[in-house]
Amino acid sequence: MASAPTSGEDSLIARYFSPIATDPGAFNLDDDAAALRPDGNDIVVTTDAIVEGVHFLPDDPPDTVARKALRVNLSDLAAKGAVPAGFVLTLALRDTGETWLKPFAAALGEDAGHYGCPLLGGDTVSTPGPLMISITAFGRVPPGRMVHRSGAKPGDRVLVTGTIGDAALGLAVLKGGKVHAALSASARERLIGRYRVPQPRSGLAAVVRDHASAAMDVSDGLAGDLTKLCGASGVSAVIDVPSIPVSDSARDLLSRHVAGIETLIAGGDDYEILCTVAEDRVDAFVQAAQRAGVTTSSIGMVVAGTEAPKFLDGQGGEIVLKRRSYSHF
Amino acid sequence: MASAPTSGEDSLIARYFSPIATDPGAFNLDDDAAALRPDGNDIVVTTDAIVEGVHFLPDDPPDTVARKALRVNLSDLAAKGAVPAGFVLTLALRDTGETWLKPFAAALGEDAGHYGCPLLGGDTVSTPGPLMISITAFGRVPPGRMVHRSGAKPGDRVLVTGTIGDAALGLAVLKGGKVHAALSASARERLIGRYRVPQPRSGLAAVVRDHASAAMDVSDGLAGDLTKLCGASGVSAVIDVPSIPVSDSARDLLSRHVAGIETLIAGGDDYEILCTVAEDRVDAFVQAAQRAGVTTSSIGMVVAGTEAPKFLDGQGGEIVLKRRSYSHF
Repeated sequence: MASAPTSGEDSLIARYFSPIATDPGAFNLDDDAAALRPDGNDIVVTTDAIVEGVHFLPDDPPDTVARKALRVNLSDLAAKGAVPAGFVLTLALRDTGETWLKPFAAALGEDAGHYGCPLLGGDTVSTPGPLMISITAFGRVPPGRMVHRSGAKPGDRVLVTGTIGDAALGLAVLKGGKVHAALSASARERLIGRYRVPQPRSGLAAVVRDHASAAMDVSDGLAGDLTKLCGASGVSAVIDVPSIPVSDSARDLLSRHVAGIETLIAGGDDYEILCTVAEDRVDAFVQAAQRAGVTTSSIGMVVAGTEAPKFLDGQGGEIVLKRRSYSHF
Repeated sequence: MASAPTSGEDSLIARYFSPIATDPGAFNLDDDAAALRPDGNDIVVTTDAIVEGVHFLPDDPPDTVARKALRVNLSDLAAKGAVPAGFVLTLALRDTGETWLKPFAAALGEDAGHYGCPLLGGDTVSTPGPLMISITAFGRVPPGRMVHRSGAKPGDRVLVTGTIGDAALGLAVLKGGKVHAALSASARERLIGRYRVPQPRSGLAAVVRDHASAAMDVSDGLAGDLTKLCGASGVSAVIDVPSIPVSDSARDLLSRHVAGIETLIAGGDDYEILCTVAEDRVDAFVQAAQRAGVTTSSIGMVVAGTEAPKFLDGQGGEIVLKRRSYSHF
């Protein structure tokens, strides 16, 4: 008997994952560990798991699940100012059907190539429970230059990339109901895409590193994540809600009172970058972001204090949020 | 309102895990990522997940589950010749009861301290399914010095640390039946301990690096793991089964025909190191291991060929194994 793979796990890895593990440090997934070569930079490590029924829906296509699993981690790296260096994957599977795994692995390989973040290793386990994909991703930053949540200072401007709330609306569309009914087919498709396939702001990593005093990605809702950033920095903030960038679809739903602002700013899955930038660097930040192809919006100011950030309407009145985050937990 | 943690996940992390994340690179778990400082060594990355009902039993005590989750990764690092540098944790929980989490986190912190492998970060997600703990651990080796599965050469000796099969017997005890009935209470306790709480051979990392041509840890059964090592090296092996080190309890069960050799060498969870060493380095390896407090046994030879390793009885007859591995998958 030739030394064939000795278990279902090995043959599954050989068939679907070894072909996408092209980095020399992955050792063709034929070892117990991977190696990351030092190049003088710090290695930034982030880990994010997604669970079926919690972070993605049971009938989400496998290729979008793969992309989401990797991209939520790439989003963290970008917000920390880090350039992707690779990732390891833990896959908890109920069954190992080819119809699911083949497109999953293919999409993962595509994204790994596109973002320059090679698969380095992993573990595949069986579970009687929901599918779960846990990824630990690595990035590189010059020594000591990781961008923290904790550097915001009173007087800094609060900025955010892209538009906020589309993914939460996409989830609402998938759940049916009034949001679904109120939108055109193309608008639905676009919002669902924002929920299923985040667009990590990888191109902004160096810009964030060069200009931001604090940064994080928006994964649990802008309001809650800003509250966390302020908490870590020991500051508060005042946000001008009409300045929060929203898509045309979101604006339309807001104006027709189909969705409220809370759905947008306390929903999750945006995977935009939220950061604070010192007043005298805002112009440079915005321009550098523009050159990187990313739109940024100034939405408020960091202020002294330890209270949670205030969200003000167009008349300066405080909007009281019943919730600030989408709890994936 | 003060900036209190905004979700159950945050307060859980603050309460149980921040106190054990004492490494400066963990940033007190108050950020989206951790940082590993380069020190000229390669960073070895390994990831292993354990699932309730698959890798541990639903009524295993939380402290032993924590130790097993970390130690299966430490075992990989040791087999690769790497010194622990830290780990990140993904915890998929059904409920967040303090009675489970408190001893879990305390034991994890103890082991992290004992093995010099600090908690650097993590993610906590809820699941309606079984509990799952996924750990990605980091170690350091001098550049290019990670020990691979693929370096075994014909003529090398095959060696293994400690004793083989105790963990499989421990699992058999926990499942009741004839193994349970045949043992004294103290023997049961010891074997259960080997199943629940692996003893990673961390002290052997440098010895393996200095002397072994190939190495891996035994997690899925000696026979299957040796088959994998041979496959990766493009060689075969001949194993003298009576030379495989077993504990007194195991020897007793074998002689009374309560357990067969297959239970021992195709069972899993040993977390001993299996390695190959060139003939002229065997003495140095064994002595260095002894100085590190680890018993090693020579169990056979690497031979040319691509067939699966042969297991011979005391008379030189081949023992045909119906299975070679315990499939956790």
